[in-house]
Amino acid sequence: MNAPVRLQQKFSVFEERWSPKIVAAANGQLVKLAKFEGEFVWHSHEDEDEIFLVLQGEVVIRLREDGAERQVRLGPGDLFVVPKGVEHKPESNAEAHVVMIEPAATRHTGATEADVAVAVEDQDWI
Amino acid sequence: MNAPVRLQQKFSVFEERWSPKIVAAANGQLVKLAKFEGEFVWHSHEDEDEIFLVLQGEVVIRLREDGAERQVRLGPGDLFVVPKGVEHKPESNAEAHVVMIEPAATRHTGATEADVAVAVEDQDWI
Repeated sequence: MNAPVRLQQKFSVFEERWSPKIVAAANGQLVKLAKFEGEFVWHSHEDEDEIFLVLQGEVVIRLREDGAERQVRLGPGDLFVVPKGVEHKPESNAEAHVVMIEPAATRHTGATEADVAVAVEDQDWI
Repeated sequence: MNAPVRLQQKFSVFEERWSPKIVAAANGQLVKLAKFEGEFVWHSHEDEDEIFLVLQGEVVIRLREDGAERQVRLGPGDLFVVPKGVEHKPESNAEAHVVMIEPAATRHTGATEADVAVAVEDQDWI
């Protein structure tokens, strides 16, 4: 059966930024780890909510909703849900470690075409 | 819209053990916080996988599968998925802080009737 996932150990086995690695699956959702640093692209997921949980570092998620822009600031131990359909753009000034939980079909940059996008089928288990 | 959830702050607003509090919802799943201390009851969830993420303390999850018993030990930063149908029994020698993510319909003790069970409709948002 599945083994416990030691998150800190898992973060130590990759260095790429903005490249989600899968560590667990449950109820059609995947638990992914990513290192954020710099700016990601604006995108939204039409059908999927996205849970972010910051374990290390500081993350800003910019949000566009009803024509207005706002941002949330997340530090270690902060969790935030980006609801489906809401445009968002994660940023981090320095390396941040983030757990994301989202449906298995969730595309990295939603409908946005971007060089940084990692196709679902290319997101590896670690 | 929803606000960031500061997990440490949320854990400070309740003291009950084995009484999940809801802090977020996404894709039909609920994110719940619970304080574990002592022994819970053996139970399983026929249709739901259950994610456990320990933030503080040490947790043992005993598991029964194919007639054999085993256990996993989880400390801070350890994540584990109990697959649907697998009997399990969480324990902790001292106060532990645990994030659980599971479908909204998940019953606390599955099909097991137990005094410690908190009905889904009685699990409060904090």
